[in-house]
Amino acid sequence: MTHCITCSAPVNIAVIKYWGKSDEALLLPANSSVSVTLHQDQLQAQTTVAASHHFEKDRIWLNGQEQCINNPRIQNVIREIKRRARKQKTDSRDIAAERLNWKIHICSKNNFPTAAGLASSAAGYACLVYALKCLYKLEGDVSAIARCGSGSACRSVHGGFVVWDKGQRLDGSDSMARQIQPHTHWPDLRVLILVVNEQKKHTGSTEGMQVTMATSQLLKERIRSVPDKIEQITQAIHDRDFKTFAEITMKDSNQMHACCLDTYPPISYLTDVSRRIIHLVHCFNKHRQETTVAYTFDAGPNACLFLLKKDVKKFLHLVKRFFPPKTEEQDFIRGNTKQLMENLSNDCEEDLSYFPFDPMEDSLRYIIYTTPGPGPQELPSDQSLLGEDGLPKSLS
Amino acid sequence: MTHCITCSAPVNIAVIKYWGKSDEALLLPANSSVSVTLHQDQLQAQTTVAASHHFEKDRIWLNGQEQCINNPRIQNVIREIKRRARKQKTDSRDIAAERLNWKIHICSKNNFPTAAGLASSAAGYACLVYALKCLYKLEGDVSAIARCGSGSACRSVHGGFVVWDKGQRLDGSDSMARQIQPHTHWPDLRVLILVVNEQKKHTGSTEGMQVTMATSQLLKERIRSVPDKIEQITQAIHDRDFKTFAEITMKDSNQMHACCLDTYPPISYLTDVSRRIIHLVHCFNKHRQETTVAYTFDAGPNACLFLLKKDVKKFLHLVKRFFPPKTEEQDFIRGNTKQLMENLSNDCEEDLSYFPFDPMEDSLRYIIYTTPGPGPQELPSDQSLLGEDGLPKSLS
Repeated sequence: MTHCITCSAPVNIAVIKYWGKSDEALLLPANSSVSVTLHQDQLQAQTTVAASHHFEKDRIWLNGQEQCINNPRIQNVIREIKRRARKQKTDSRDIAAERLNWKIHICSKNNFPTAAGLASSAAGYACLVYALKCLYKLEGDVSAIARCGSGSACRSVHGGFVVWDKGQRLDGSDSMARQIQPHTHWPDLRVLILVVNEQKKHTGSTEGMQVTMATSQLLKERIRSVPDKIEQITQAIHDRDFKTFAEITMKDSNQMHACCLDTYPPISYLTDVSRRIIHLVHCFNKHRQETTVAYTFDAGPNACLFLLKKDVKKFLHLVKRFFPPKTEEQDFIRGNTKQLMENLSNDCEEDLSYFPFDPMEDSLRYIIYTTPGPGPQELPSDQSLLGEDGLPKSLS
Repeated sequence: MTHCITCSAPVNIAVIKYWGKSDEALLLPANSSVSVTLHQDQLQAQTTVAASHHFEKDRIWLNGQEQCINNPRIQNVIREIKRRARKQKTDSRDIAAERLNWKIHICSKNNFPTAAGLASSAAGYACLVYALKCLYKLEGDVSAIARCGSGSACRSVHGGFVVWDKGQRLDGSDSMARQIQPHTHWPDLRVLILVVNEQKKHTGSTEGMQVTMATSQLLKERIRSVPDKIEQITQAIHDRDFKTFAEITMKDSNQMHACCLDTYPPISYLTDVSRRIIHLVHCFNKHRQETTVAYTFDAGPNACLFLLKKDVKKFLHLVKRFFPPKTEEQDFIRGNTKQLMENLSNDCEEDLSYFPFDPMEDSLRYIIYTTPGPGPQELPSDQSLLGEDGLPKSLS
């Protein structure tokens, strides 16, 4: 007997950032955060979990490579899910109970390159937790369990617009994510991810947060001010008030990176290309005399831009003008391109004197065009990543 | 009758930065600051002022070009100097009194390119104020008058290590600079200025400070913490405690730039080259297992580095290795090069695996090697920039 479940989960982009833990072991954040879950058509983790009495040991494959299952964070997630499932079992004598003693195989992959530097671990852990939840027929919220894998993974457990409450309890049991609006709430909202061409390795976010918590004097002031910002951006999302949403998003991104720079030794995730993107957005908004595009940056140089459907073509035209690909690439713009008209450059003339800089050729690898999207989903069994032998299909 | 005075004044580099005014009109700073005055052999403004009953109007030439004398800051300085001189005159019937009613000619130049982005206005205003002080035989401190020209100019009125107290009085009369140690106090201290090759125009510091004051939430926290830092760095200078001096200097530079990034729209003075210099310094210090080099950045990408004489050759070797000039330039390293041995690269082998990055060719324009230095000085009359006709010698 083998029980097998395949699920998918999305990436999320924080608009009020999580930077700094109040508890390293429990992955409790120093401040609450707000995110937008992105559509899985463009960015998705997919995970198959199988439990069988034939399996001799727990095993895990990520993007085709077997990994060590003893990774503490993976172990935390499996242990916590099983603990919750056993507790539920004693209450309801669930049919899935016997599976709890079987060994499991886990196989996971992303539909986008890890090299893109897009929080793949958040989607990955959310997907693992959601698949195990389905496997063991667990009820209730599992975002706090996803959090034990990767802090921001708890936000990928929900679709649409999500708040991760830092919680009050010392055991972290109330540090969980909740949806504040579904992805259908703001149909005109669009997302562009500008993937920057760069080789450099940056400080990982886990390590970066630790050093910032330990050394940045300014972070304390930031943490104090987050609750007010969350209230404001929640209202802006509720009202579909793009201007307020955009300005809070940009200021919060800048402030997180300011705290990184105030770290000792300082941490810089923004490169000259990132800073040029910021400049382009502000020039565009000034030129249009309203805030029509917002940027946000995580622990890397890639920009995530928010804008409304009506402005996408005009802005993309500018991006292609000032960050031209080296050769005219077919797939420079990826994702939901059917929504875009074929020829971007015809009806999009802007007064270029508003943009006082030269093009930076070959500085972007590609652009992903997407929208907010729903949360994790169970997929039909034909999409399983594991074969009937319990081994990855990609290896057979 | 023509009275003519020629003076020189130095550049200064802040180690506790001035960023933000509490009074725009009086140029009062939001926080006190600390600086090191650099030696005039390398970086110097030179100014001749002449007063004559033959002159028909006040005139000014900067670096060979006549400028409008009605610049409000120049007017502020001239008015304030004359006001003080008249007040003194009524007390002492000074011989210089009659000159106060004559028109003046001012001629000023720098011995370094303005394009280097090194606070030339500070040296320029300090020099103008000092020359006028000599011309009118004014007594007492003139740093508060220099402040009315360009805030940080008040620090260039003194040599060595200088504090600019923000002061308490609303009229700004106690917002002045004082020397905390002469330049001879720390004979081993050396300064390297890495002039970055870049075309981009940045936000001017006057405008930048205004926007930061108006929009940065984090700046308030920074301003609150400055008095403690000034106390600590003053003690470190007194003790010639390089490690403490260096760490406070680096942290304060990072924090000022963090507040710039927390500004809306954000301001970035640091480029990829600046950030690489920062990284090189931290790698070097880690490798040496002690803090032997410190960086600080003003409103631009150029780095000012502090280090001790014993470490200059080793560190310069690394700078040349990782920021090589495009062609082997004779004058890549300028300034006090007689102090350096001819062949930098021989006895300076470092384990380069500590420096995990590739060289950035042609990213530095040149390097200036200098030391702390004395304050403004009166020069012999043969160094006058004005001829006997009261016009710039460079024009005749």
